[in-house]
Amino acid sequence: MSERIYTAAVIVIGNEILSGRTQDTNLRDIAIALGSWGIRVMEARVIPDVESTIITVVNDVRRRYDYVLTTGGIGPTHDDITAASMAKAFGVDLIEHPHIAELIRRREAPPDIMAARLRMAMVPRGAGLIANATGGPPGFFIENVHVMAGIPTVMRAMLASLATKLRGGAVVQSRSVTAYVGESTIAAALEAIQHAHGDIEIGSYPFVNEGRTGTTLVMRGTNENALDIVELKIRNMLTRAGAAVV
Amino acid sequence: MSERIYTAAVIVIGNEILSGRTQDTNLRDIAIALGSWGIRVMEARVIPDVESTIITVVNDVRRRYDYVLTTGGIGPTHDDITAASMAKAFGVDLIEHPHIAELIRRREAPPDIMAARLRMAMVPRGAGLIANATGGPPGFFIENVHVMAGIPTVMRAMLASLATKLRGGAVVQSRSVTAYVGESTIAAALEAIQHAHGDIEIGSYPFVNEGRTGTTLVMRGTNENALDIVELKIRNMLTRAGAAVV
Repeated sequence: MSERIYTAAVIVIGNEILSGRTQDTNLRDIAIALGSWGIRVMEARVIPDVESTIITVVNDVRRRYDYVLTTGGIGPTHDDITAASMAKAFGVDLIEHPHIAELIRRREAPPDIMAARLRMAMVPRGAGLIANATGGPPGFFIENVHVMAGIPTVMRAMLASLATKLRGGAVVQSRSVTAYVGESTIAAALEAIQHAHGDIEIGSYPFVNEGRTGTTLVMRGTNENALDIVELKIRNMLTRAGAAVV
Repeated sequence: MSERIYTAAVIVIGNEILSGRTQDTNLRDIAIALGSWGIRVMEARVIPDVESTIITVVNDVRRRYDYVLTTGGIGPTHDDITAASMAKAFGVDLIEHPHIAELIRRREAPPDIMAARLRMAMVPRGAGLIANATGGPPGFFIENVHVMAGIPTVMRAMLASLATKLRGGAVVQSRSVTAYVGESTIAAALEAIQHAHGDIEIGSYPFVNEGRTGTTLVMRGTNENALDIVELKIRNMLTRAGAAVV
């Protein structure tokens, strides 16, 4: 019996990513963490801070994957609309979470500033919290959707606290072999190896390093024995092709 | 009469992005280039090298935006399935493009290596070419979908050659003001400015720099006069809030 595969989608929410102003790094951090927990990121969406878009995309992906993780849009300013959009996506009220509100009220502030900070206590009714070791307000989850901050340091703190919460399956292991050889030189032999090992996904990634053309071959799968065999076959194939393995 | 707005979607194709092995940088480069040409990236999708997914996503977005730009999956190995998937998405045959084939045949190679390299000459019937100044095979376009390489240096060469091909509208200009002030402190005043200027999109991006909390306010819009006014209002608001503007 084959083991259950756990899947996830990532939604990066933020106009600043789509304008090119900001280089996203959260997707990669999330993909690596989830991978190590046995959860496979099947797709990612980068969308603007637009309520109707957030609602449509969340409602599409949350039904198709075990988990959805989002980043961005949970601060105290007018352009932070993720929590309100999530409440609408789930058809529930947006409420002030007593625990977050208490946390925020501990630090005194003038009324208008406190009012802005308390926006970060608003979550969809029924949401649970995602701990934030940086000391700021926590993230939240509702059903299988986990809503995190966009600032990378804060996102990583929230992601770390999910490690013990999200159930995963077999971890996809990877091996890689790099050689100074062009992809075309080994394409036919590589395809034959791929055909013989359907349970291992073989990726071929060309690069140019100081004018020298090379290829990194990445093998991914959950079966260590199969990975061992495929890696050996690939190393032998590269040797036969006269390629300098790094 | 308001000017036509030109829109685009970006599709990043590649298992290596979703596994976290590779940090994507192409989306940002494309967003900045398109923005400077007056074309707005409305969403981005990161998808695996899976034919059915590529077909579904391409056929979804190509009907909703003026342009679609894709990266990845056009090399010579078995995992490069973008061209074949595009042909299926458009319901046309995959054919050898005589110009690309000629370019590839100029450099001699043993038959099996030549056969692999000629995979890069396969394009959907009716496709036009996207020049590649790096000297490698070109990318291609079919209707409004532009298919480029995943290697950043090659992608950028192909993107540069689109500069004179893609028609855009008014360019979204941006201004930014950075101050050492917490977002909550200015949230109410900022929201009032945003409400008074619906044609300017104001984004608030908090950061922590050597332990000091700051916020960058980004204004975006096509009307320079409106941008001038909003920038002035924001600078005055920050001064009144006692914030140290950088």
